[in-house]
Amino acid sequence: MTSELKLIGIGAGNPEWVTVAAARAIGELDVLFVVIKEKDLDEFVEVRRQIVSEHRSTPLRTVELHDPPRPWRSTPDYPAAVRTWRAQRLQQWSDAVASELGEGQVGGFLVWGDPSLYESTLAIVKELVAVCSRDIRIQVIPGISSVLALAAAHQIPLNRQGRAVVIEPARLLASGMPEGTDDVVAMLDGHQTFAHIDPTGLDIYWGAYLGTGDEILISGDLESVREEILRVRAEAAHRKGWIFDTYLLRRR
Amino acid sequence: MTSELKLIGIGAGNPEWVTVAAARAIGELDVLFVVIKEKDLDEFVEVRRQIVSEHRSTPLRTVELHDPPRPWRSTPDYPAAVRTWRAQRLQQWSDAVASELGEGQVGGFLVWGDPSLYESTLAIVKELVAVCSRDIRIQVIPGISSVLALAAAHQIPLNRQGRAVVIEPARLLASGMPEGTDDVVAMLDGHQTFAHIDPTGLDIYWGAYLGTGDEILISGDLESVREEILRVRAEAAHRKGWIFDTYLLRRR
Ligand SMILES: C[S@@+](CC[C@H](N)C(=O)[O-])C[C@H]1O[C@@H](n2cnc3c(N)ncnc32)[C@H](O)[C@@H]1O
Ligand SMILES: C[S@@+](CC[C@H](N)C(=O)[O-])C[C@H]1O[C@@H](n2cnc3c(N)ncnc32)[C@H](O)[C@@H]1O
Repeated sequence: MTSELKLIGIGAGNPEWVTVAAARAIGELDVLFVVIKEKDLDEFVEVRRQIVSEHRSTPLRTVELHDPPRPWRSTPDYPAAVRTWRAQRLQQWSDAVASELGEGQVGGFLVWGDPSLYESTLAIVKELVAVCSRDIRIQVIPGISSVLALAAAHQIPLNRQGRAVVIEPARLLASGMPEGTDDVVAMLDGHQTFAHIDPTGLDIYWGAYLGTGDEILISGDLESVREEILRVRAEAAHRKGWIFDTYLLRRR
Repeated sequence: MTSELKLIGIGAGNPEWVTVAAARAIGELDVLFVVIKEKDLDEFVEVRRQIVSEHRSTPLRTVELHDPPRPWRSTPDYPAAVRTWRAQRLQQWSDAVASELGEGQVGGFLVWGDPSLYESTLAIVKELVAVCSRDIRIQVIPGISSVLALAAAHQIPLNRQGRAVVIEPARLLASGMPEGTDDVVAMLDGHQTFAHIDPTGLDIYWGAYLGTGDEILISGDLESVREEILRVRAEAAHRKGWIFDTYLLRRR
């Protein structure tokens, strides 16, 4: 009998961004695999817990996957260390699925936002299924990404009429807006890249903790608002101990 | 008393992609504004009807907005004709809202997929509210875009690790993949652009009628599968009378 693993997009912050399809999938799971990252945030664990409890009438068996500690960038032969770390993680997940997912059972992973954007869960699960001796089917359920949440919160379109929109890790923005593009959504910004690029002619739509009670939105001419964003961002990160932010840069 | 207009993303095909937030909003509406386009598709009307009936316990008052016929491209002074058409549409919507949305009431628009991607509803509603003499608040509720639906159906990530993904109208692809980008999602393709570009080194992940019972998925080396996509697409479009498709082009 074929077993199944469901990757369930749960939206990027508001528990009400769960879709009917995701809620139904949660209700039908036999087992939930919960990936615990090194420095995982209590609030994320709490959002997940709340979503599960709201969409289950019966308790859900939960298996924790503790990711091995990721090697430091200063590790001698860092690429080899990362390969080893990846192999260990795959082994850990594979062992857990082999022992905890019964024949014909349905297991699930809750994925923040949408499973297709800047997420590794799907790639690992596909590897795991490929090396697994059993027959396991995969299903992916889309979710409200932080990219869409940002646009909704600011009440703006992501694209201009007939034009492209680029989604990218902020690191790629370090050298400025990509050639030929007027609309860029930046994610995973650990370095406030928006404040280090030439602001001429750019507007920013910035959002932190989107969809949560702590949501903060700032928008305007990048040159005029970037200091305010830096200040508000630093205060919030200090107060809460972590921050999740994303932003659209738009050429006027 | 402030009134409200909600733009409710309903997902791009599967009625179960409605979020809890969207379902709640539908349940709380006093009036639904339904935009009827010239050649609107019965199946879309049917998905919307199904979503409304599933998330309402009481009947929903519905106001139809019939968009004026869009001028032909061959019209003399086409830009002026489009401006006139836009102004008429805005006037029509404004009149309907003025007469049908009571003080303190909540009106809604159901938006296909997500309201921020290749949709004009939000822009028109913002214009309408700006020129309106009454105080109207706007709320935007994100939805599962066809872009996310495509990735979920093919069980792929949209981005490669550390890289950008571009979303654009297929028209911009006519001159080939944008410089420096390896992953492009094309929408609004009336001309099967994927079949007219240099396929060297490209994979395609193509999906039509995503999230519906008619969903079709084809993927592979663009050069090897493009003829098959053209054939399957033409057959389906002929059989159903319309087609909605989107695809990711990915440089290997
Ligand atoms: C590892 S990626 C995961 C993205 C996720 N799959 C999605 O679709 O939103 C994490 C990044 O997403 C963005 N992000 C996720 N949730 C967010 C939220 N609630 N508010 C602001 N940004 C968020 C931030 O840029 C963060 O660095
Ligand atoms: C006017 S745009 C609206 C997009 C919508 N706001 C969204 O977020 O998906 C329409 C285009 O979206 C894509 N699309 C929408 N629904 C689709 C579906 N169910 N299957 C395939 N493509 C779809 C097609 O490329 C179509 O030409």
